[in-house]
Parts: sequence; C-alpha cells; structure tokens
Amino acid sequence: MDKVVTFGEIMLRLAPEGWYRFTQVDKFGATFGGGEANVAVSLANYGFDACFVTKLPDNPIGQSAINSLRRFGVNTSYIARGGDRVGIYYLEKGASQRGSVCVYDRAHSSIQEAKASDFDWDNIFKGAKWFHVTGITPALGQNIVDITVEACKAAKKAGVTVSCDLNYRGKLWTRDQARKAMTEICKYVDVCISNEEDAKDVFGIEAENTDINSGKLNKEGYKSVAKQLADKFGFKKVAITLRTSISATFNNWAGLLYDGKDFCFSREYEMFIVDRVGGGDSFGGGLIYALLKGKSTQEAVDFAVAASCLKHTIEGDFNAVSVSEVEKLAGGNASGRVQR
Amino acid sequence: MDKVVTFGEIMLRLAPEGWYRFTQVDKFGATFGGGEANVAVSLANYGFDACFVTKLPDNPIGQSAINSLRRFGVNTSYIARGGDRVGIYYLEKGASQRGSVCVYDRAHSSIQEAKASDFDWDNIFKGAKWFHVTGITPALGQNIVDITVEACKAAKKAGVTVSCDLNYRGKLWTRDQARKAMTEICKYVDVCISNEEDAKDVFGIEAENTDINSGKLNKEGYKSVAKQLADKFGFKKVAITLRTSISATFNNWAGLLYDGKDFCFSREYEMFIVDRVGGGDSFGGGLIYALLKGKSTQEAVDFAVAASCLKHTIEGDFNAVSVSEVEKLAGGNASGRVQR
Amino acid sequence: MDKVVTFGEIMLRLAPEGWYRFTQVDKFGATFGGGEANVAVSLANYGFDACFVTKLPDNPIGQSAINSLRRFGVNTSYIARGGDRVGIYYLEKGASQRGSVCVYDRAHSSIQEAKASDFDWDNIFKGAKWFHVTGITPALGQNIVDITVEACKAAKKAGVTVSCDLNYRGKLWTRDQARKAMTEICKYVDVCISNEEDAKDVFGIEAENTDINSGKLNKEGYKSVAKQLADKFGFKKVAITLRTSISATFNNWAGLLYDGKDFCFSREYEMFIVDRVGGGDSFGGGLIYALLKGKSTQEAVDFAVAASCLKHTIEGDFNAVSVSEVEKLAGGNASGRVQR
Amino acid sequence: MDKVVTFGEIMLRLAPEGWYRFTQVDKFGATFGGGEANVAVSLANYGFDACFVTKLPDNPIGQSAINSLRRFGVNTSYIARGGDRVGIYYLEKGASQRGSVCVYDRAHSSIQEAKASDFDWDNIFKGAKWFHVTGITPALGQNIVDITVEACKAAKKAGVTVSCDLNYRGKLWTRDQARKAMTEICKYVDVCISNEEDAKDVFGIEAENTDINSGKLNKEGYKSVAKQLADKFGFKKVAITLRTSISATFNNWAGLLYDGKDFCFSREYEMFIVDRVGGGDSFGGGLIYALLKGKSTQEAVDFAVAASCLKHTIEGDFNAVSVSEVEKLAGGNASGRVQR
Amino acid sequence: MDKVVTFGEIMLRLAPEGWYRFTQVDKFGATFGGGEANVAVSLANYGFDACFVTKLPDNPIGQSAINSLRRFGVNTSYIARGGDRVGIYYLEKGASQRGSVCVYDRAHSSIQEAKASDFDWDNIFKGAKWFHVTGITPALGQNIVDITVEACKAAKKAGVTVSCDLNYRGKLWTRDQARKAMTEICKYVDVCISNEEDAKDVFGIEAENTDINSGKLNKEGYKSVAKQLADKFGFKKVAITLRTSISATFNNWAGLLYDGKDFCFSREYEMFIVDRVGGGDSFGGGLIYALLKGKSTQEAVDFAVAASCLKHTIEGDFNAVSVSEVEKLAGGNASGRVQR
Amino acid sequence: MDKVVTFGEIMLRLAPEGWYRFTQVDKFGATFGGGEANVAVSLANYGFDACFVTKLPDNPIGQSAINSLRRFGVNTSYIARGGDRVGIYYLEKGASQRGSVCVYDRAHSSIQEAKASDFDWDNIFKGAKWFHVTGITPALGQNIVDITVEACKAAKKAGVTVSCDLNYRGKLWTRDQARKAMTEICKYVDVCISNEEDAKDVFGIEAENTDINSGKLNKEGYKSVAKQLADKFGFKKVAITLRTSISATFNNWAGLLYDGKDFCFSREYEMFIVDRVGGGDSFGGGLIYALLKGKSTQEAVDFAVAASCLKHTIEGDFNAVSVSEVEKLAGGNASGRVQR
Repeated sequence: MDKVVTFGEIMLRLAPEGWYRFTQVDKFGATFGGGEANVAVSLANYGFDACFVTKLPDNPIGQSAINSLRRFGVNTSYIARGGDRVGIYYLEKGASQRGSVCVYDRAHSSIQEAKASDFDWDNIFKGAKWFHVTGITPALGQNIVDITVEACKAAKKAGVTVSCDLNYRGKLWTRDQARKAMTEICKYVDVCISNEEDAKDVFGIEAENTDINSGKLNKEGYKSVAKQLADKFGFKKVAITLRTSISATFNNWAGLLYDGKDFCFSREYEMFIVDRVGGGDSFGGGLIYALLKGKSTQEAVDFAVAASCLKHTIEGDFNAVSVSEVEKLAGGNASGRVQR
Repeated sequence: MDKVVTFGEIMLRLAPEGWYRFTQVDKFGATFGGGEANVAVSLANYGFDACFVTKLPDNPIGQSAINSLRRFGVNTSYIARGGDRVGIYYLEKGASQRGSVCVYDRAHSSIQEAKASDFDWDNIFKGAKWFHVTGITPALGQNIVDITVEACKAAKKAGVTVSCDLNYRGKLWTRDQARKAMTEICKYVDVCISNEEDAKDVFGIEAENTDINSGKLNKEGYKSVAKQLADKFGFKKVAITLRTSISATFNNWAGLLYDGKDFCFSREYEMFIVDRVGGGDSFGGGLIYALLKGKSTQEAVDFAVAASCLKHTIEGDFNAVSVSEVEKLAGGNASGRVQR
Repeated sequence: MDKVVTFGEIMLRLAPEGWYRFTQVDKFGATFGGGEANVAVSLANYGFDACFVTKLPDNPIGQSAINSLRRFGVNTSYIARGGDRVGIYYLEKGASQRGSVCVYDRAHSSIQEAKASDFDWDNIFKGAKWFHVTGITPALGQNIVDITVEACKAAKKAGVTVSCDLNYRGKLWTRDQARKAMTEICKYVDVCISNEEDAKDVFGIEAENTDINSGKLNKEGYKSVAKQLADKFGFKKVAITLRTSISATFNNWAGLLYDGKDFCFSREYEMFIVDRVGGGDSFGGGLIYALLKGKSTQEAVDFAVAASCLKHTIEGDFNAVSVSEVEKLAGGNASGRVQR
Repeated sequence: MDKVVTFGEIMLRLAPEGWYRFTQVDKFGATFGGGEANVAVSLANYGFDACFVTKLPDNPIGQSAINSLRRFGVNTSYIARGGDRVGIYYLEKGASQRGSVCVYDRAHSSIQEAKASDFDWDNIFKGAKWFHVTGITPALGQNIVDITVEACKAAKKAGVTVSCDLNYRGKLWTRDQARKAMTEICKYVDVCISNEEDAKDVFGIEAENTDINSGKLNKEGYKSVAKQLADKFGFKKVAITLRTSISATFNNWAGLLYDGKDFCFSREYEMFIVDRVGGGDSFGGGLIYALLKGKSTQEAVDFAVAASCLKHTIEGDFNAVSVSEVEKLAGGNASGRVQR
Repeated sequence: MDKVVTFGEIMLRLAPEGWYRFTQVDKFGATFGGGEANVAVSLANYGFDACFVTKLPDNPIGQSAINSLRRFGVNTSYIARGGDRVGIYYLEKGASQRGSVCVYDRAHSSIQEAKASDFDWDNIFKGAKWFHVTGITPALGQNIVDITVEACKAAKKAGVTVSCDLNYRGKLWTRDQARKAMTEICKYVDVCISNEEDAKDVFGIEAENTDINSGKLNKEGYKSVAKQLADKFGFKKVAITLRTSISATFNNWAGLLYDGKDFCFSREYEMFIVDRVGGGDSFGGGLIYALLKGKSTQEAVDFAVAASCLKHTIEGDFNAVSVSEVEKLAGGNASGRVQR
Repeated sequence: MDKVVTFGEIMLRLAPEGWYRFTQVDKFGATFGGGEANVAVSLANYGFDACFVTKLPDNPIGQSAINSLRRFGVNTSYIARGGDRVGIYYLEKGASQRGSVCVYDRAHSSIQEAKASDFDWDNIFKGAKWFHVTGITPALGQNIVDITVEACKAAKKAGVTVSCDLNYRGKLWTRDQARKAMTEICKYVDVCISNEEDAKDVFGIEAENTDINSGKLNKEGYKSVAKQLADKFGFKKVAITLRTSISATFNNWAGLLYDGKDFCFSREYEMFIVDRVGGGDSFGGGLIYALLKGKSTQEAVDFAVAASCLKHTIEGDFNAVSVSEVEKLAGGNASGRVQR
C-alpha cells in the first residue's frame, strides 16, 4: 500500500434529497466532502494508504467527519483536533435549466484557523509517495497558504511527488490573491491539474489563435493552455479537464494530459448527471492512481476521465468506485448493462 | 409591494415520491397546490403582496393549507374559513412513455360550496393592482362562476387589471359549460392566457390555413389563435404556451405573447422534467410580474417562459424561484453550472 | 378469470434507493421479485387468476414474500412452505455510464432445496390455461430441472399451453449445463421467449450472414434466430426482445414475434430508464396475455413491447400496469401527457 | 378455512409519521383501515377465508385499498366497484398529555352512496360461518342501515352467526339516530361487543349502584352493563372492553365476556402505546376467532384481550399478529424477550 | 390581533431523526428554532400579530429561516437581512439515561454581528402591547446587550410591557458577564421568567432555609426565589418553572407564578418526552398569552404549564398548539383520548 | 493505543424502522452487527486499536460490512476475504407486550465456512493485550470451535488475556454441543461473562438454596453462580449481567463482578429501551476497557453496566458512546439533562 497524502478542508455537506430546493424541505442529507478529502477517498478506494491531513473540532460533528473518511478507508491519524467548527457547504442540486446552488458557511472553521504547529510534516511524509493540494484551501487565508508552502517544501525534501489542482473559487478570494498564492505553491508542483477557466482566472493563461466558435472541441486551444502552464512553472505534467455544460442534467466530459512531449486526449462521455460535485476531484484521484501505477500518458488520462465520468453518476462528494470499475469503463464498456 | 389578488382552489396534493405508482407505496408526499394558488406563490416569491382568496375548512387540514401558503409569503388574510373539506388531487408522476396520473377528489370542498357572502370583494381589491382567475375553479359549479363574475366586476370597478388562464379541465365540466361560463368571465379580462388546446376546447378557436404537419413549430397557427382570441373578446394581451410532449420526461417549451400589434415568441427550451404540474401557472405568474413591472412584450414572454421552464425542474406545484434566477435564465444562461 | 400458472423463485430484493451505491447507505428497499413471479404479477394485473408456485420458509420473511404477491392479486395458495431461507439478490441501480450491480445470495433457498413431493401438479393445473417457466430457476440445480420437466409433462397432459423464457444466467450455471437442461424442458414448450444473447448462450444459435455493423436494427438477423429456434424445437411461436443499451439510463427497446409464418416487429421505444430489472419478464407477461386473448401476431408483439416499455419506468421487479395503460401506449400515445 | 364476512368502510388513513403534528409535515403515511376491515384483516391473519364487503371507486386509489387488504390475505372478491371516492381519515398520533386527533373526510365515499343492489348477500353468505358488523358504517346514512339490516337477515337465513360492535361515533350521528338504527340491527345479533361508553351513548345503559370513585376496576358495574345488554336484546354473548387512559402513551387494557351465565374477566395489561387505533377492532377479531374455534368463555376473553393488547404495539389500523403470538401472550409471556 | 414583539436569534437546528446519534446518520432534520423565535411562534399560534425581530443573511438559508416562521404565521417584516450566516445548533435527542447533546455553531451569525442601526425600534413598537427578550441572545456579545437595552427603553417609552426569560447558557458566557448584562436589562422588565438554576446562576439567588432533601416539591424554596427576584428588580410578576428530570424520557413539570401578593402553583404533569427543547419557551409564550388576555394568576400559570407540557410531546422547537388545546389540558383533560 | 482482538461473525442486520413489523414494510434498515464485532466497536470507541477478525466475501456486501466497522475506527486489516455470503439476521423490534423477533439467515456465511488457514494468529496477536471470544460463533460449526481454540492457544502463548461471553444461542446448537465446545474453550479463558440463563444452559450451573420468589434481586443466587463458574474453570474474574424484563419497552439492568474475593454489584437502572440488541456485548466491551485500564472490581462493574445501560438507548448493534459519557453515567448522572 503506497502512502499518499492530501491536505485541505473537509466540510459538512448539507443538501436536500433529489432535486428539492432549500426552501422546500425540512431534512438535509448530511454527508462530508471537500476537494482534497475527495481525492483522498478516491485514493483509498484504489488501495492506497491515503492520509488526509486537516484540523477538525474535538466534538461529535468533527468526529462524524472523521468517521465518514474512515468508512472509506482513509487514514485519519494525522488529523489535528481543536478549533471551533466544521465548515459547511449547503448544496442544492439543479436539474435541466436550473443550476445547482452552493452556499458556503465555511469561515472560522478549525482548518481555517489552524496554525503551522498543528502539523508535523516530516512525520507525515515519512514513507509517502505523493502529496496533493488544491487552490481551494489556500483561499481560506494566508496562514493556510503558508502551511501549504511549508508542506510542499517538506514533501520535496522527502522526495514526494507534488500535484496541485488549481481549482479557483471566486467566492473565497480574488484573482489577484489567487495568482500570488498559487504562484508560490506552484514552484513545488510536479503535476498540475486545471480546467480552462482556472488557468485563465488564476494565471491569465488563455488559448492563443483558436476559434472558440468553431463548433467542435477546441483541441488546439486546450493544448496551448497546457503548454503555457508547463512552460511557465516547469510542471512535468499538465492535465486539463474539458466539460461541456449542456444543462444541469446533461454534460459532456473529457480530458487532456500533456507530459511535456505528447498531448493525449481521452474520449468524450455524454453524461446524465446524478451529482457533479467532486467531478474534478475524482479526475485528480484517478490521475494520481494512474501515474503512481506507471501508466502511459494516454492510459492515465483515459483512467482519470473514466473515473470522473463515473463520479457524475454517484451521490455525494466521494467517488465510491473501484479500480476494476474504472478500468472497465476506460476499456470501452459504457453500456451500463447488468451482470447477472 | 404591489398588491395582487388571485381567487380559486387550493388542494391537498397526495403524491408518491419519485416515480413510484400509487399501488406501490404506503407514503404520500402531502403538499398543497392549485392553479390560482400556484400563481399567488409565484407572485409572492417575486416580491408582491400576493393575496390568495379561497375558502378552507376550520380544521387542521385547512390550517395546513394556509401554512403552506404563508411559508412562501402569500397573504392569507382574506381566506374564508368553514365548510367541510379540503379538495384533494392524487398525483402519480410519470416517466418516459408512462404519463402522469391525476385523480381528482375535489367535490364538496369548502370552496366548491362557498357562497357570495364569504367574500368582501370591495375590501379585497382595496389598493390592488392585478386580479388573476382561471377556468379551473369556475368548473366547480355555477355558484363559483357567479362569484368569479362578481369578483371581476368589483376588480374592474376598482381599476384592477384582470387576467385569466383558460385552463380547460375536461374531468370537471363539458366544453359547452366551459364556453358559456368563460364567455361571461372573459368580458372583464384584460390579459388572456391559453394553450392551443384550451382555445379550441373552450371557444372552438383553431389555427387557420396552417400546415400542422410541416414538422416545425407552427408559429403562424399560434399567431392566428392569439389574434382570434384578442379579436373576439377585446383582450389587450393574449399569451399562448407552446408545449411539445416528447415523453413524460422530455418536453420542449416556449411561448407567444401578442399585444394587439406584435407577436413575440420566446426561445424554446428542451427540458428534462422533474415535475410538470404547475408549469402553466408559473408562466402566468411570470407574465403578471413582467407586465406589472412594465417590461416589453418580448421581455415579458421571455421572462414568463424562463420562469415556467424553471418550474419544470422543481418538485411540487409551487414555483420556488426568485426574480434574479428567472432573469438569469431569460438572459441566456441555461447551462446549469454551479457558482462557487 | 382464466387460470395461469408460473413456477420459479421469488427473492428478497435489497436495493439502495435511487442511484446510491451499496457502500453508501444504511437502508435498503426491501421488495420481492424474480423472473417467474414477475410474470405472475403481470398476469394478475391483467385480470387472470395467476398462480405462482414456489417454496418459501415458514417464517415472517417467507410470509412477507407471500404478502407482496397477494398485494397484486397473485394466487399464492399453491406455494409450499418449509426450508431454510428466502433467496436474496442485492441490486444497485446504475446510471449513465455506471451499470447496475447485481449480487446473488440465493443458494440454499427453500425453492433450491425443494423436492418433487412439494408440488401436486395435477391439482395445480386443474382448470389452467397456461404454464410459464424460465431458464432461471432450473439453474438452481438438477432437482429443479427435474421438477420443471415433471411440471411441463403434467401441463401438457392437462392440455395447458407452455411458454418458456430462456433467460440464461451465467452466474448460476455454465452454458453446457444450461443447454442440457433447457433442451429437455423445451420439448414441452409451445412459446419460446429469448433475446439474441440467450439463444446464443444456451443453444449456440446466432444470426446467419448478417452485417452486425450496418448501424441499424439487425432485423434479418433476429428473424434468422427466431426461425432457427422454432425449427430446432418445434415451437409454435418464438418471441425475441431487442434491447440497445446506450447507457444505464437510456435504452432502446423493441421486439419480434414469429408465428411460424410471419415475422412481426414492434415499433422501437427510446426509453429513459427508471428500473430495468423485470423488463424481459414484463414482455413475457404481456405476450401471454395477448396470446391468451387471441390477439394477432402483430398485436401481440405490440402489446408485449408496450407493456415492457412501461415496466422500465416503474420501480421494482413487478410491472404495476393495467391492460388499458398498455393498450394506450401500444396504440401510439407515448407523449406522457397528464389527463385532468 | 372457515369463511367469515365483515361489511363496512375502508378508508385511506393519512397520518404524519411518529408524533409529528399535521401542520409540521409534508408527508403522510398512507395506509388503509376502518373498523370492519380491521376485523377482516385480523381474521385473515388467523387463517380464515375472511371476506370484506364494501364499495370502492374504480380508480387507482380504490385499487390501492383493495391491494392493502389482499396483502394480508383478505378475500376482496365481493367488493363492489364504482362511486366517486375513497373515504379518508386524517390521524395525528398523540403522546403523553396530547391526545390523538382524528379528522374525518369520509362523506360522499363510494360506500356511503352504495345501493342495496351493489351486494348479493345470498351469494356472499354461501358457506359462511360468521358475519360481523359495527355501529360505524350505519352512521353513514339510512341506506347503509337498510343494507346492514338486509345483510343481517340474509345471514340469519343462511345460519350465520352475527356479531356487532356498537362503536358509537359522535362525529357521524346523534345518540338518537344511533339508538334507532342499532336497535333495529341488534335484533339479528348473537354476539355484542361494546365498551361502557358505547352502551351508554347508544342505549343509555349504565352500571347500577356502583361506586365509580372506588379507585379500582369497577367490575360489578361492567357486569351489570353486560347483563342489561344481554337481557334487552337477547344476545347470546356480550363482551365489554375496559380501557383506562392514563395518557396518550400509557393505557391499561382488559376485557369482560358474559355468556349468559358466567362473567369472565381477563387480566389487565399495562401498555406503552405505539398506535391505539384499531385496538377495539382487534379485540373483536380475536373474540370471533376464539368463539369460532370453540374456546371457553374465559379462554375467549383472554385471547381477545391479548390480541388487542398486541395491536396497541403495532403501527396502522391492521393487527398484524398470528394466532401463536396471541396465544403466547394470553398464556402469560408478556416480558417481551427476544428469542434467538 | 394584538401586536407582540420578540427579539433574538433563530438558528438552523440540525438533528438526527428519532434517537439516533450524530455519528450514526447521514441525514439531519433541518428545522429552525431559538428561544425568542419559539415564543413568537407560540404567540402567533395563539392568534397574535407576533413580530420576530432578528437579522438573517440574504441567502437561501436565511430565507428558509424566514419561511419556517411565516409558515406558523409569525410576522417577519421587521427582520433585517445581511451578514454572513445563520447560526446553527446540532441536537441529538437523548433517551432514558442518555441525555440530549447540544453542539452550538452559532458564532459569527448575522444576528451576533448586528448593529444598532439594523433595527428601528420606534417603528417596531408602534401599536405593540408586549416585548419579550431572554438571556440567550445577549450572551452573544456586548453589541447585543446594548441593542437589547435600547429596545427595552424604546418599549417602555411606547408603553409596552416587557418580559424576560433569564435562560442562562453556560456555554455562551460566564456567570459574571450574565449578571452584569441581565442586571442592566432587568431594569426594564415587568415580568420575569426563570427556573431555580437560572436565578442562582445569574443572580446568585437561592432558596433560604429549605430542606432540599425533604423528598417532595420544595414549594417554600421556590416561593422564596420568586420573592427575592421580585424584590431585587421590582418585577410585577415572577414565574418559575419546576422541572424534575427522572431521565431523558420521563420528566415532571410544573410552575409557579408570583404576582407580588399570591404564589400560585400549577398542577404537576408526569411527562413522556418527545422533544424537550423549547419547553421553557413555550411556558413563556403561554404566560404572555394568559397575562395579555387578563387571566388570573392561577389561571395564567395553569395555562402556561399546560402549554409547555404539550410542547414536550411535539417534535422541534416550535410549540404547534392552539389556545383550545391548551385550555382543554389546563382544564384537566390529560387522558390523551381520541375524539371521533 | 493498546491492541485488542475479537474474533467472530459480523452479520447484515435487516430491520424495519421504529416498531414496524416485517410484513408491514418495504424498506429495511441495513446495518451490521454481531456479538464480537459489537465488542470491537465498543473498544474502538474507547480508544483502543481494536482488531476484528472474521471472514467476509469479496463482494460489495462484504465491503459494506468492513466499511461499517472502519467508520467506528475498528482495525479491519486482519479480516480474511472470500467465501460466498455475509450472514444475515432479520430483526423486528418489539414494544410493550410484543417481544422482538429475530430470524437468522446466517448459514453458509463466509465465516461459517472459514478454514484454519484463513487466520495467522501469531501475527494477529503481535503486541496485543486482550482477546475476546463468545459462545455465538463457535455455534456455527466444529471448524469454528477448532479455530477458536487454536486462537486461544496462540493468545495464551503471546501472553494475551482472554475473555469469553458464554452467550448461548438455542437456535444455533444444542446445550450438549455448547457444553462440549465451551468447556474446551474455557480452559484458556481468564475473564468469563455470563447471565444466569447462559450459565445454566451451557454448564448447568444454577443458584443454590435461594428463594427465586422473594421479590427482590436474588443477589445471593447470582453470587453462587459466579463462584461456581470461577471454581469450575479457574476464571480470574466472572461477570454476570442481571436483566429484569418488565416488557419489551421497560427493563431493569444491573451487573455483578466477582474477582475471586469480592462480589461487587452495580446499581440497577430502570430503562426505557430504544434497542436492546447488543446490550450484553456493550457490557463486555465496557468490562474489558475497565479491566485493561486497571479499575477496581467495583469501578469495573459500574463502568460496564453504565456502558450497557447507554447501549439500550442507541439504535443498532453498535454502542456508539465515549468513555466520558459512560463515566458520567457511572458517576451517578442519569437525569438525561441537556448541556447547553
């Protein structure tokens, strides 16, 4: 069991069942999720010793967050306890022309108010192979940016590969703040994950000379973005996720992985969406699995996109799928037939 | 807060969850709805002092109906209490090739047995700007036709604009009964709402000289219907809703508004349907909002169609959307992306 | 009320609600189903005295299985009681690119361990018109094959028409075992139901000289399969179901019925799937109804396909539809409009 | 399987789950029940061919009522179909000092508007052993009183024993109406079931010369009531149920059976109440079983009281218990231990 | 409809259903409540124009809080909108020897960060008869203490009666902070509500010379506490609630009201508890109703205790009872019988 | 974190919600439990590295069982995977005079068909402090008895303390089989847990010369049983649980611990029961905790009884309580008050 580490926030996700709106219900699904925790769950499902590092209050709600991670086999032994609250996000799932609504209530969470001394990175990275961060948690404040940078340094020192999902959250910080922080963090990053918007929002990187209205997947444009990102920060690999939102119910989904030499596109899936939150994170989880297992660039993007395609059919943030399920889909079996 | 008034029936809606059939379940969703009440809820959501006038029994079920309206901010202070029962409709939601099933159990409701003396229209219309009725409640009996006519007269006397949704219900009365009653009511109506079937069922008005098999939206036909309706009754405005039922799960949806001069069509939405009951009512609510706010004919039909498109994604009769959500969709954002 | 008989297993079906995965939930829908029981329920819904013959333990879970059948009017008076357990199948419904998962836990069930003496076939077939079996229950063991053959003989002796759905279950037995058993059973069968895979898996029968990649429904191929089946066993009629699995959420569905002379294809339905388990069984139920009512070959396949199209919109194994609902769809009304 | 017959109304029971109030919920438990139907279910559970006679509309709600009876094995083949609606009662379960609330919405039900010609009593009583009626359904109108009397006459002609539970419902008719109707019906009754209030409300029969404030069970008073009832109408047996309402959650429960000679009291149970509706009906069901099985007077009242004690622990109107469960409790095992 | 005003916080209450623990569930009941809001709901249920004053964020969660109040008829038109979040309390209901668990997550709520300028007290008190505050909301910070004092002054200026429930919350502030703040507020209070613990925690007031171990209700002690409170602050009336916690499931409940002259005790209820949160608030609501209606001291305490006894049988913070229900219980009918 | 080990079966527990009966519902709570697994969960909750050893099938249901253990922090790394099925028990919770019903469907489970080679005991006991077994799993077959004996031997060799809960299950084996097997196992046991019935059923040990009808807790009798057990097998400690079943809803509960010198009784709790399954196991878990922490005999029995008293208030098999919660109750706080 290779040891992998992710660092970030896990929030209580309060969501009406089905397609009900907030104002209609008096019951919320109460599960847990968050970009980096979601990646940890994916990696635990794939058989790694996936360690999730965060800070949670020492009360029954913090304990419930830990239980939700342990249920899927995540290693929670490095989680600091203390502080005041578990961050919350309220999620109302959209349908058809009505988009999902996300209300953050995550300020003042234990992780937002964490201190550097809460985490012993040298111990955490002992024996680890991979470290994954995103642009979400650093948006909580400079203390988190600093902790993240410190963690990245410790990771590099320990010979751990570092990946980062840019994940710009406009509700949490400005583009300028993001650029400053992510520029600092990206110095230590080997594998960068982004979508076209993130690259533009965070680093102002856009496709050059491509006709966005050509009516088909703007492949040249995405290749340009990947190359610019790699060139700017020296990333060894850059992955770009390609989402076409037809409506809240139907999306197309594909991906690109650039390894400094080849640009490999996955096939594109036409998806009926059960729950799209965590879709990008499940791409990250799949990519880390594939790269750690030594798959080729084409195989890696195929695995990552198939994994995240499956996530869109699963309720909740966590991608509850196995390696064999992902491989079956990546291998071409998308018909959804029952085996019996 | 402009005061607007609707008059009609609110029923208990008993519906299995999801796509279960009546005979499969031992639990019913128990919400409330009804054409005119649904319009009142839309208008309350849009910020009006929306008064719903009806009669409900003085028991806990009548009280629950009132509570369901108050929850969305509807003014229930003009509701008469008394009589024997809350009308019921049982609703089983269809899917794909299986249509929804609606079983009425609404006879002998308090509103059906209401008397003229239950309502003090002069008081009700004090300060009001708009009065909305439909063809549903008059179908309950001649007493309701009479009360509706009396209310329309009082509205006109008070300088209140009157709108009417023809809404023919074949399970409640015959075409002849409908024609007679609605002809009387339409004398007082400024804004008429209909679909092609209603116009034909109630008034025998059909499109002239149009090729129904041409394979595309029969725009000329709808224009003809709108014009005939306006010409016959002197309506200031006629709105027509245009539904294409591909299946119980997929419908296309658009609208036309005729202001005596211009015929303005909205764009057409391809909808995955969560709940289509109340779809027409939400069009009415959106139209009244738009006209009261002084929007142009094109803007008004765009707003009304966007509002009702959203309704099809929402469980229950009531259209729980805000002005800004409708305007976002009417403005062209139908991709259902999450904001975070 | 014509008396019809089916023989087989009814299992407890444990299934997470909606699209949840097994590992996510702590509640299972607990209904009952099984190929032959599903046909019995269809036939009871269509007004027959539908007798389901099986063996169930004499405990509250066996009683719950009986109650589930009685609820839909199935005659349970020939069910033997005894043995150790009710068989179980765990079902996780797929969506989009994620297929459904079926986990069998049916070994050692009361029916699997039944003895010939548990059933008095002469009494059971007294006054009966039709007997239906499938290839599922014989897969449980040679004792069941023997009982099935004995039942078929008794049926023929009593002048009862026999139908059989080949229904190959690769998780229960090998192709060789299936071929041997089904060859024995098919001697007594008048009406054979199959899909292309079953015919191939069980009897090695495939379409001749047809181009499977032609991009349209391989009509000639299916005709060839039907004819080969009829020729080999002397079936009076052969029905083939035609499923195109686009994804777990979208399937196309049609059928073919061959009466020794004519090959009649139904129309093809594009389905949004609520629950596809029991889809084939509901085809069988519809077919038996139509043939017993003396419908023509074209009418029969149209009715059977419409019935099973509706099943795909209904939760659970049982097809809770009436004759009039099926006839409405078979007659062309697939728009899913509400009647009110 | 002895054939037994009950005649009356089955209603849709709409009830919030647990101890929620009507105005708090948007979901109702939707089961079915009614005094005479409840007795039929008890008798079906005890192994009789229990026929329930009523009239139900020919729609899916009427069908659901039939399904609910069939589920427990009740013979529904004599139920007339037609009329407008299924009667409803709304039930809110009380707790501690808050009593349950029952709102009737049963006027205009199919059974209330039934005609004599809807029922062929000679056919219904063919082979029957017992006929049970109550004072509830006759309260719906003179037509029902007449049908009940006609049924009783047919029963006596067919040699069928007749039992009647007085069951006065003050919300449905006056004491005078009840006295007149029940006096007519009681002419044909062999076994009368009552509680102290019913005897007083319907026939003005009260205990003589007993001190109601003595602080202990007023045994002499109940004996007097039983004897007066028997003397007045010539009942062969009179059963009295004895309830002490400490609160909505705790009741004491016992019974008396008088056979014209002996007065036999059961033991008294101290009950924690799950659902008390149908408690009296389950006493009637138990009594009929015991008397048909030839049990002694003491055994019969013990069985009936144990059966109805168990009912108070079961959700819904129907008493889902077996003979062996009742006998275990009647035999003295009230400790509620688990067998494993 | 007399106008009454309460000021304070309304929180989202997240609670597992039934007796489940936090760590066991993935669904929370999501209702709203809080000391002063609960009093407002009681008063709206009793027919007053009950205005609840608070501050809530301008997002869908804030809107849901408003909707929950409107549903029960509370006037929400004076609620300020703005700020960051709705306060939350997590509630796990205890049973038997396991006490309930309450986890606050209410810091940084909109009301905690409210400013004096958010409320126009002169306008709010226009036409009002009563103003109610508690010791809970002032515990959120000095700004709230100041706003409360300002509100009290405005109330007195407007001739409005002021009541205060001491309600000490040890998790929110210290005894010293509470004493200082409540001493300031109590200057303006006419009617004080407390329990023995509050009086001691906040003001150090205890019973003199009474034997707490005498084994019976310490009536003299409670009288002493009431008198000391009245003497110290010049309260016109002091009410004391008397709870005996036998376990989380069984409590005894009574009250005392002192009017400066007489000490009136209510009867004591032995309660099976459905939900005890809001029990004290419902006492306050009942007391205000009774005093505003001019009831005698004995009648008032009887009404208030009966109202709050009923609350303990009702799920959620809000006391969903009517005046007639309370009066029935106060009048002695505690048997929980069904009326039908 | 001391390492502790338990060995046995974990089953899927299928149970209707609340007090519903099997035949009433179409949904089952689907959690997991079993005597030894329950002890492991208790110990994990108390902070130990609690390892549960069993065998589970390599399918999603086996995975769900593992997830349910991981959620509460149990170490599942020694669980063997393979075999055919997860054992099941169906549980219907009783109330008042209706006892709970338990239907076993556990034959042919993976653990029942496990082989010695599935477990590497020397590795399992590396660093362990305690090993706990019960009389339940050995009842599955001689192979399990043999494995258990082998495990006990390995434990003794590794210097691990061994405890055993006699737990006789009459549905699984005979008294003779139990005596033979448990006599063999008890050779290795240090701490024996029993109730009066187990001691009698398994070893024929009864209280001597005590008057069972004396009306009070038969303390001398229990002391005699404990002493006889200790003398017969040389147990260092014997614990006896004392349950008085008043009804399925109300039980009294206490315990005795004998350390070879002193007989220490706990206080007796009067319990309102939420779920009594797992009550004995939670006593075992509490006892092991207390003894490992070096508590005195009196403290240990007090802790164990308080822990198991709390279990009776918690849904499901697992005792979701913390050390501090148990200590609070053991310390005398049983009032169930809310802290806030």
